[in-house]
Amino acid sequence: MPGGTLQPFWGQKTFCVLTGGSQGIGRRFAIEFGRKFGKESVLLLLARNAQGLQETRAKVLEANPDITVVCIPTDLAKGGAELFRSVIINGLGEAKAAPGDFQLAFIVHNAGSLGNVGPGVAEMNDSEEWSEFLTLNITSTAVLNSEFLKVFPENSVPNRTVINITSLCAIQPFISMGQYCVSKAAREMFFKVLAEENPSLDVLSYSPGPVDTDMTVSIINNTRDAKARQIFIDMKEKKTIVTCEQTTERVMQVLSNKKYKSGQRVDYFDEGY
Amino acid sequence: MPGGTLQPFWGQKTFCVLTGGSQGIGRRFAIEFGRKFGKESVLLLLARNAQGLQETRAKVLEANPDITVVCIPTDLAKGGAELFRSVIINGLGEAKAAPGDFQLAFIVHNAGSLGNVGPGVAEMNDSEEWSEFLTLNITSTAVLNSEFLKVFPENSVPNRTVINITSLCAIQPFISMGQYCVSKAAREMFFKVLAEENPSLDVLSYSPGPVDTDMTVSIINNTRDAKARQIFIDMKEKKTIVTCEQTTERVMQVLSNKKYKSGQRVDYFDEGY
Repeated sequence: MPGGTLQPFWGQKTFCVLTGGSQGIGRRFAIEFGRKFGKESVLLLLARNAQGLQETRAKVLEANPDITVVCIPTDLAKGGAELFRSVIINGLGEAKAAPGDFQLAFIVHNAGSLGNVGPGVAEMNDSEEWSEFLTLNITSTAVLNSEFLKVFPENSVPNRTVINITSLCAIQPFISMGQYCVSKAAREMFFKVLAEENPSLDVLSYSPGPVDTDMTVSIINNTRDAKARQIFIDMKEKKTIVTCEQTTERVMQVLSNKKYKSGQRVDYFDEGY
Repeated sequence: MPGGTLQPFWGQKTFCVLTGGSQGIGRRFAIEFGRKFGKESVLLLLARNAQGLQETRAKVLEANPDITVVCIPTDLAKGGAELFRSVIINGLGEAKAAPGDFQLAFIVHNAGSLGNVGPGVAEMNDSEEWSEFLTLNITSTAVLNSEFLKVFPENSVPNRTVINITSLCAIQPFISMGQYCVSKAAREMFFKVLAEENPSLDVLSYSPGPVDTDMTVSIINNTRDAKARQIFIDMKEKKTIVTCEQTTERVMQVLSNKKYKSGQRVDYFDEGY
């Protein structure tokens, strides 16, 4: 808004929950977001891998010693409302802070699994496997998000921002990646509805592009789709694959520029954001 | 294909599985589809409501006494691969038929629940509720579909057609209908991937428009969104709401004209199909 008093997104006293912070994009988000958080911010890192979380924590504190970083080793798929609420409340407790102490309440739904990449969806007939996959990627996201917004209700802080890490797979079908596509499409719709229902929230679905992570390696090793495999191999060889650093920088610009409409999807390659 | 020998969709000896056939659109589909099936076709009706299924069956046989209609009262959310497979195999058994006896293998994924319509997605923090909803609307669809295609693999019959009953909610967020939107978005993506992975299949996501069913009544009674409620009330009063008969006729034309690309979504109001 020209002439307006646009609050800079970064530098605020922030309470941030980040899922999947033990590796890959999540770790880079933690470090770079954390570096830009205002003094006495709190960063809550959730992931299964306790050692990975501790390594992330050390790097974040190296980047910004003026914030509190709390690691919560937890399997999101096994968490419910009570666990998630207590995790957030304990995070506040460790920092001796109350919700109203912050300028920005910020949650980054980055955790997600690739699902079964070997067979096609016509072959996937295991109900248990489907249910576990959907619980991790949809249910736990919905419930954690709900608990976060209960701790930080409307007017509790000046700004509330929710990011969903999405994928091209949310809007385009990919052979051999059916579960991943289904979960990403479902999540993007979830966050669109969230935005529609809560005009006071700022909701962004950010698609990080084809990023060089363990997930990419897993696609290369497991996909049945020779074309997709070759595309990823070529990108890695020609170094045209996006790095964690590049996509982190991009999403930070997108948040800072704030040219998206709440609920919208923005891709790494989209111009004008 | 001009000049080609396009097989008419209706009138073939068909093996059809239809979910949610005890009421509403599903019942109308059963009757009108059944009326057009060739001699010795088999229609397998799955739904929870046993009495509703029997009533549907009687109406189908009235419309076409030359086919076999098998009712399977079952809670799809509780079914797994084994149950679904045995249901299909038993259906073949009752008709003393083998998969290869048919010209068309046809599955209609019509069952689906509206989910929780009262609260917004930010308030829905019940993991059990989310999981049950996703199991019924996504997992059971995926697993039943897989078992159907195992009984009718590529080249087992000349034509294999899969319909997913979708909604405007699959592509547009609606206040107070978050779970429904999420499930419909997820299902549409599932069937897009299925089409991409299986070029020999014919896959259609059909959106029946705002149809006058119990589901509409439930939206009117439960939605928090006054605007949406009023739109439905107005449509009912002015009789501009789509009837089960109208939408059934439309989807039958769409299947017959076959102008959609496999995996595509076609809405009741879309022209040119």
